[in-house]
Amino acid sequence: MSDSSFTAPACPLPAGASDIIELAHGGGGRLTCRLIDDIFRPAFGLAPDDFTHDGAELGIDGARLAFTTDSYVVRPLFFPGGDIGSLAVNGTVNDLAMCGAQPLYLSVGLILEEGLPIDDLRRVAASMRQAALAAGVRIVTGDTKVVERGKGDGLYVNTAGVGLLRAPRPIAPRRVRPGDTVILSGDIGRHGVAILAVREALGFETEITSDCAPLAAAVLDLIDGGVELHCLRDLTRGGLATGLIEIARDANVTIELDEDRIAVAEPVRGACEILGLDPLYVANEGRFVAVVPADHAERALAHLRRFDAQAAAIGRVIAPERASGVHLATLGGLRELDWLSGEQLPRIC
Amino acid sequence: MSDSSFTAPACPLPAGASDIIELAHGGGGRLTCRLIDDIFRPAFGLAPDDFTHDGAELGIDGARLAFTTDSYVVRPLFFPGGDIGSLAVNGTVNDLAMCGAQPLYLSVGLILEEGLPIDDLRRVAASMRQAALAAGVRIVTGDTKVVERGKGDGLYVNTAGVGLLRAPRPIAPRRVRPGDTVILSGDIGRHGVAILAVREALGFETEITSDCAPLAAAVLDLIDGGVELHCLRDLTRGGLATGLIEIARDANVTIELDEDRIAVAEPVRGACEILGLDPLYVANEGRFVAVVPADHAERALAHLRRFDAQAAAIGRVIAPERASGVHLATLGGLRELDWLSGEQLPRIC
Repeated sequence: MSDSSFTAPACPLPAGASDIIELAHGGGGRLTCRLIDDIFRPAFGLAPDDFTHDGAELGIDGARLAFTTDSYVVRPLFFPGGDIGSLAVNGTVNDLAMCGAQPLYLSVGLILEEGLPIDDLRRVAASMRQAALAAGVRIVTGDTKVVERGKGDGLYVNTAGVGLLRAPRPIAPRRVRPGDTVILSGDIGRHGVAILAVREALGFETEITSDCAPLAAAVLDLIDGGVELHCLRDLTRGGLATGLIEIARDANVTIELDEDRIAVAEPVRGACEILGLDPLYVANEGRFVAVVPADHAERALAHLRRFDAQAAAIGRVIAPERASGVHLATLGGLRELDWLSGEQLPRIC
Repeated sequence: MSDSSFTAPACPLPAGASDIIELAHGGGGRLTCRLIDDIFRPAFGLAPDDFTHDGAELGIDGARLAFTTDSYVVRPLFFPGGDIGSLAVNGTVNDLAMCGAQPLYLSVGLILEEGLPIDDLRRVAASMRQAALAAGVRIVTGDTKVVERGKGDGLYVNTAGVGLLRAPRPIAPRRVRPGDTVILSGDIGRHGVAILAVREALGFETEITSDCAPLAAAVLDLIDGGVELHCLRDLTRGGLATGLIEIARDANVTIELDEDRIAVAEPVRGACEILGLDPLYVANEGRFVAVVPADHAERALAHLRRFDAQAAAIGRVIAPERASGVHLATLGGLRELDWLSGEQLPRIC
């Protein structure tokens, strides 16, 4: 997922940074970013050019591959529209897709807590298989560890994925140009609200299901249709706003969004109002943005609407005004979108 | 690691199998095996031929690759001779090596517990880098999640790895033949005893350090030296005995071992006696067995002794007597080695 890969250049220091890990270090906001910049980037000797945003590009023996990983700690394990198994397959499939790759093979690493009902494990494994079949990938290797009661939370899953790069040119923030169009593949906010609803027993569970779904078919359709893709980003932790803030920063551009073009289902909007959440920052697991040259926007939309009728052009890239960033054009005027400072929804994925 | 990959055909049902996960499900013995056979194999649609023992072989776009994963939950995070970071790099490097592959790229997935000192994370990341440099691999993509206090244990690590297959022929139990020689790369039992000593404050910490080390250079040296490799197995959870029991079962052969050829350092032997452990079942993180045709044994030993003077031919493969299995020739006669029934040393890796 975008916010979790070791890809972000320097980002602003949060106030009151501490010397222990906080939940917000996993939230996809400023603290996640600092962890990457302060620890992983120097420790692993990462150069920005080593990476595409959602995975690594590898050239091995003449083959052009994408390689990515994510761990999944979502709570609860089962939620409306999915479970940790389908999430773990689709999340990694989607990271490969965002590299412009056809997902092919997955590994699965399980950390089980002593006392987990074996039937839960069975359900999760069956769900992983279903999701893998639906996404056209094969689970080919794996590992299981068990930890004592109170040292886990039922079940954590890691998946890593290998795919074949299909995009003719790199898909990366550095290819984003002023004049490009920003396209959103569907409505936003379903996953985060579905999780929160079931977790907090808010009483609107039945209305809202997670958007958890594989995105590779839609991306490959864009590539096969000859759409020039400058950047792709799936909108997970931190939602649409965080994904676009990252792209704007990495590309050193400003992105202008039209609020009224961003689809939010009425039940999601209502739930966000009750919960005090901004749908722009709520996690999704089956939505992405594509940044394309303006003259490819209509073609991209025609392709994406085969998969979701709500796909829409939601904004444009302009030259940076003072600093890079994301502006939201609302009825009340321009609003600057900023990084999440803390943790909005822990363990959403 | 061998015992953790989804590779084992049916194994005997343990007495008193329960419907919840127990620590022994992660121990590499009968219960681990049942989990694989009863849940993962049917759920993921795995065929035995899909797999090599320690990872999957992939053919992508003309490239012959190996792909593997392991999660690491070792307790404590830091131990004599290594830490969870070096273990996570070497463990996955070694699984690729056991496929006959040159390890190239690793992913890292971290699950951090709220409250982990950031300095511990920094130490682990630095150790991963050192281990990666030593093993000649690059960490190219990663992910970080944070869970609440009491839902983890400081830090869990998953690594997945991609390598280039270098062995001209498959390395797998099905290639093991009566007449083959079994070679062990060094002395056994160091890792498990080092962990246990520091965990239980047994007072002999300073004498015994983990054997945690990368094995790829030794394997590639065997391949480059033209040694015909029928099977390789690194000896992690469950130790030498479990690794050989798995090979014997998968190859449908009997393996005869000479106890006096198996090197065990005196401090390790002493600690095992105090603790009531059998060194044959104690975990290692830098030892492997190679099963080779008898007429390649001398050449294999000459190569392996460049890396460890204690490398030795410890036994031979014979046609199965009634059932497949492993026999240990001791001063007192033949002893049949059986699966571990429970969990000897939880969270050893």
